[in-house]
Amino acid sequence: AENQKQGKDLAVIGGDGIGPEVVAEGLKVLQAVAPDTFSLTEYDLGAERWKRTGEVLPDSVLDELSGADGILFGAVGAAPGDKSMPSGILERGLILKIRFAFDHYVNLRPSRLFPGIASPLSDAVVGGKEIDFVVVREGTEGLYVGNGGVVRADTPAEIATEVSVNTAYGVERVVRDAFARAARRRGKITLVHKHNVLVNAGRLWNRVFESVAAEYPDVTTDYLHVDAAMIFLATDPARFDVIVTDNLFGDIVTDLAGAVTGGIGLAASGNINPSGAYPSMFEPVHGSAPDIAGKGVADPTATILSVGLLLDHLGMAEQAARVEKAVLADISRRTPGESRSTSAIGDAIASAV
Amino acid sequence: AENQKQGKDLAVIGGDGIGPEVVAEGLKVLQAVAPDTFSLTEYDLGAERWKRTGEVLPDSVLDELSGADGILFGAVGAAPGDKSMPSGILERGLILKIRFAFDHYVNLRPSRLFPGIASPLSDAVVGGKEIDFVVVREGTEGLYVGNGGVVRADTPAEIATEVSVNTAYGVERVVRDAFARAARRRGKITLVHKHNVLVNAGRLWNRVFESVAAEYPDVTTDYLHVDAAMIFLATDPARFDVIVTDNLFGDIVTDLAGAVTGGIGLAASGNINPSGAYPSMFEPVHGSAPDIAGKGVADPTATILSVGLLLDHLGMAEQAARVEKAVLADISRRTPGESRSTSAIGDAIASAV
Ligand SMILES: CC(C)[C@H](C(=O)O)[C@@H](O)C(=O)O
Ligand SMILES: CC(C)[C@H](C(=O)O)[C@@H](O)C(=O)O
Repeated sequence: AENQKQGKDLAVIGGDGIGPEVVAEGLKVLQAVAPDTFSLTEYDLGAERWKRTGEVLPDSVLDELSGADGILFGAVGAAPGDKSMPSGILERGLILKIRFAFDHYVNLRPSRLFPGIASPLSDAVVGGKEIDFVVVREGTEGLYVGNGGVVRADTPAEIATEVSVNTAYGVERVVRDAFARAARRRGKITLVHKHNVLVNAGRLWNRVFESVAAEYPDVTTDYLHVDAAMIFLATDPARFDVIVTDNLFGDIVTDLAGAVTGGIGLAASGNINPSGAYPSMFEPVHGSAPDIAGKGVADPTATILSVGLLLDHLGMAEQAARVEKAVLADISRRTPGESRSTSAIGDAIASAV
Repeated sequence: AENQKQGKDLAVIGGDGIGPEVVAEGLKVLQAVAPDTFSLTEYDLGAERWKRTGEVLPDSVLDELSGADGILFGAVGAAPGDKSMPSGILERGLILKIRFAFDHYVNLRPSRLFPGIASPLSDAVVGGKEIDFVVVREGTEGLYVGNGGVVRADTPAEIATEVSVNTAYGVERVVRDAFARAARRRGKITLVHKHNVLVNAGRLWNRVFESVAAEYPDVTTDYLHVDAAMIFLATDPARFDVIVTDNLFGDIVTDLAGAVTGGIGLAASGNINPSGAYPSMFEPVHGSAPDIAGKGVADPTATILSVGLLLDHLGMAEQAARVEKAVLADISRRTPGESRSTSAIGDAIASAV
């Protein structure tokens, strides 16, 4: 049915803080590269809505979202010091709820040091090297399942647990996706885990990784404990092609990966359900940055690159490539210390696609 | 009784790979700075012993170790590709067994960029800045407790779990230790967690952190999600003074901290039971590095600095300061690209203390 449809339905969740600002630029670029293709429905979700109405993500909205062809997501979250909002409400009630409800088991996070972008790593580490890898983060299991609980809350005898749930079903599908990507890229894949301590989950990840590896004799495999992965990301990020890892390690690895490749102002991501049974969701890795919200200084590039991932996911590879090319060209013209406004960057990229 | 004793009993576990080599240099420096003070007992533990005898840490050995005044530990671990040794056997059966049996709840990991040492971070990030912080990693709880299990092992329906256990008792004692350190240092402490996702454990850590903070009005508090901590470690490590965090986040944070402060060849650590009920254990953060073992090229500095932490813990502050000063002087004389042997570095520091 979807292929017969003329246009595509895009659900848009700007969110809080800089979210709506960067999403506006993403949409600008989307309209420029694919005019009259998307019909947009905006959803008012996030900290502000919760404060006004006490609602995070009503079932009816989740239901509507499920009918979309894709979701563009900005960022949610109140200011860090804002104690009126219990921690985790938005994360677990909105962003993780969508990832789990729509079975976004591939959380795809490309990391690339674009020419002309300054890395916090020294020239000895990154100079003359091509740093271009992608993290395939599992998105529906691990410590993110929300299992665990509290006994004797708020007493000196309190016990709080968190349970990481890992299944062969869940691990295999994401490991397969990662191997397929490695085969299409430079043919190298690194499993990141901590199987010397997390022996139950680690054994499962290892076993599945090795069995899928046997089907890909041309893909070189590697394994790193998550702590060792930190060291290599800081001292030799060029060694990576595809990293596959669990939900929490993926969260940690991708923020560091974003930092070393020039900052999470550039880090795009896709929460993907490869089967197409549910809409996939595309979002910048950065958060809502309340401290700079409303000032027009947020960098919309990560959101614009996320639009590129969205287009690619929807089979519009040509348009996706145009977005990426325009971003690359824009980045190559940036000078250190320049400060273009959010909309100036969006305008420039939109007019270049 | 301990205070009446003339000498101190030091248990020495060289371990595998480069472990024995770097420990030998640590002992050289220890003898130089505190001659005739320690009587040493060497223990043959690690991958090699396991392969020979099937034993990891016999109860009788654990019992003997408990009588020591301190433990100096090198590193354990077979070569990464060595499949004859099931993952986790040594880690959980030896190193974690000691940490748990001797209630090493303060896993202390100083991170300092010594003058003259190259960081993988660019000059724009570290140039002219003083980077000197300490991570207080909880050592007896969290995902390291070894809870969890496997259902339907080795089938496509396998489920593997890992349980993070956190108690008010365990969190409070380590948070108190960290605040006391912050008060003695530059008066700043950062809690690293992920309370927006791990809401049960996160709420406990937050609550305890805030209640102890109320007793330290002069200590400035900060909170970072672990993913954001990655970014700041890579882009502004000078902002940190004391970081307090759980066992797994501490593992991850300290390897990155070690990397950005010049490599884990310099990163020392103490597994400390502050009550003195059990001996504390001091070890370099690095592993057994089987690839460079036996070549005399391993840097013993992290082990020598760990000896400094040991002396400090045993109340020999003057000797500890001499070790640190000698290391600093040695480091300041190093030239980029120089390659002194393991024993040459040990000799130089030993003769300088
Ligand atoms: C906001 C939070 C729940 C989320 C995560 O931890 O996955 C974010 O850090 C991310 O990486 O997308
Ligand atoms: C060897 C391993 C069990 C250990 C840990 O994870 O704690 C090591 O990485 C460390 O940091 O001391």
